[in-house]
Amino acid sequence: MTDTPPHARLTAALSEDMAAVGDLIRDRMASENAPRIPEVTAHLVEAGGKRVRPLMTVACARMCGYEGTDHIKLAATVEFIHTATLLHDDVVDESRQRRGRPTANLLWDNQSSVLVGDYLFARSFQLMVETGSLRVLDILSGAAATIAEGEVLQLTAARNLATTEETYLKVVRGKTAALFEAAAQVGGVVAGVPDAQEQALARFGDALGVSFQIMDDWLDYGGAGDGIGKNLGDDFREGKLTLPVIRALARSDDAERAFWRDALERGKSEDLDRARTILDRHGTLEETRVEALAWRDRARAALAELPASDLREMLGDLADYVVARAL
Amino acid sequence: MTDTPPHARLTAALSEDMAAVGDLIRDRMASENAPRIPEVTAHLVEAGGKRVRPLMTVACARMCGYEGTDHIKLAATVEFIHTATLLHDDVVDESRQRRGRPTANLLWDNQSSVLVGDYLFARSFQLMVETGSLRVLDILSGAAATIAEGEVLQLTAARNLATTEETYLKVVRGKTAALFEAAAQVGGVVAGVPDAQEQALARFGDALGVSFQIMDDWLDYGGAGDGIGKNLGDDFREGKLTLPVIRALARSDDAERAFWRDALERGKSEDLDRARTILDRHGTLEETRVEALAWRDRARAALAELPASDLREMLGDLADYVVARAL
Repeated sequence: MTDTPPHARLTAALSEDMAAVGDLIRDRMASENAPRIPEVTAHLVEAGGKRVRPLMTVACARMCGYEGTDHIKLAATVEFIHTATLLHDDVVDESRQRRGRPTANLLWDNQSSVLVGDYLFARSFQLMVETGSLRVLDILSGAAATIAEGEVLQLTAARNLATTEETYLKVVRGKTAALFEAAAQVGGVVAGVPDAQEQALARFGDALGVSFQIMDDWLDYGGAGDGIGKNLGDDFREGKLTLPVIRALARSDDAERAFWRDALERGKSEDLDRARTILDRHGTLEETRVEALAWRDRARAALAELPASDLREMLGDLADYVVARAL
Repeated sequence: MTDTPPHARLTAALSEDMAAVGDLIRDRMASENAPRIPEVTAHLVEAGGKRVRPLMTVACARMCGYEGTDHIKLAATVEFIHTATLLHDDVVDESRQRRGRPTANLLWDNQSSVLVGDYLFARSFQLMVETGSLRVLDILSGAAATIAEGEVLQLTAARNLATTEETYLKVVRGKTAALFEAAAQVGGVVAGVPDAQEQALARFGDALGVSFQIMDDWLDYGGAGDGIGKNLGDDFREGKLTLPVIRALARSDDAERAFWRDALERGKSEDLDRARTILDRHGTLEETRVEALAWRDRARAALAELPASDLREMLGDLADYVVARAL
């Protein structure tokens, strides 16, 4: 690995493709009828996101030897789905900041965020249809259903101390891994790879997404101490049952259990330090980090089933990178 | 015409198909992971809606001689898209009642309405993909984009006295006609009709939807006086620029214009009677009714391009019915 992060090296190696993705996104987010749509969309898509998901699609397609142009459409599709879910998530979570800027629901209103999100979902499906691949449509519409299902599950599991690790993993797949999985897999589909390689790509994307989200949940409780790009303790204050908490709860004594009940169920979540002390006592922050690394290893193992190439190297480095810091 | 309304006669004539649509909707709205999803969906889909949109798809397919089963999937798709837009609309409009019952956003919360709507959108795309028809996917994803665009346009046009009839018609197409158009058209596509008939079906659905929405906007100002299924003056209080108002504004004197500015721009909309008096003075309520009838005639003319049958008769009666009362 060099000092340049792998997503930046991938973007440089695929700069023409990624520029085409950017052009297509700008072109398709337009709406001559409703100028509010490109305004809201531009606020998000031009806010300096790293476009890791479309990068996955483009990189996987090229790694598999694809020489056409449909992967550009699929990459834009993936970014539109991602942007739509961000718009809706910020309404659902009543968020005020995203990528260091005020959220769209704050700058405009919830109504615009809901409806522009719907528009981007619809536009993403139109883009997919243009590829003419029913296999791609099947994968991405399935991913969209899994994402929405995971978000509903997260909503109903919040503040519920009985949440299991199994439910946690479903939420993680929905909110993060499903789109990474689909993004990688459709890159292979468009390149026409054999089924075994398509499945390996899907497992790579899934495992990378899971490791990324688990690490994100670890960072929310301080992680290595810098909490890059996040406010420490957001999950704690929102009563989200993430892996370090679920495991600590199972081992908590009566006093600790009473603390979690007050903090997570009843929202008396002033004492983040106490929460971290309990997590430390049970060693679950470290366990969470180890779990993220295990998923990173699964991502690398899946990638090893694909032919060696420079792009494969960089995608492997990307798997290391997501557990080293939040994207 | 008999005393039985045409949608009831169509439902009776197509009872097996409509029962299959109902079964498929119940089956696909399930989610073993997130029970909140079927709860919220059932609240809406079992609230006694007349399922006019899926009925259009089924009736158009059968009228065109279709003997397969894909029209069932398309009809369920159309109802899922409709249900998703209702869920999101009620969040956007902060509605408290729908079909005489409390809205989902009131019974649960805005979050559930947003996310369950997203889930239903995704499920509708999965159902479409199962038909294997890219033409159908193209039509319905296009309709979904037009719907969202129309809703955004309605949002940004509200309280704007400069709204034109052209913009009004785009809003009408988005909020209502686009889905009727697609519902009718895909019935023909699945039956494999020639392009001219497919386009006639699209024009039929579009014109029926436009006439329905214009009549709905007429009813909001009292229409024939009963205002079935609507609270009188909702549009007025929400500052929506509908056809009778747009036309009256163009002919208003200074005093009337000041009234509209206060009522629509500034939300001082206590005096619905004054609004109705002004509309009456300029004759725009009657003009609006006549406009709805003209669209009804266009719907009937488009239908006449298709082969005569009992189903065609009933669909023609349906076009009469939507201008006679709100569905």
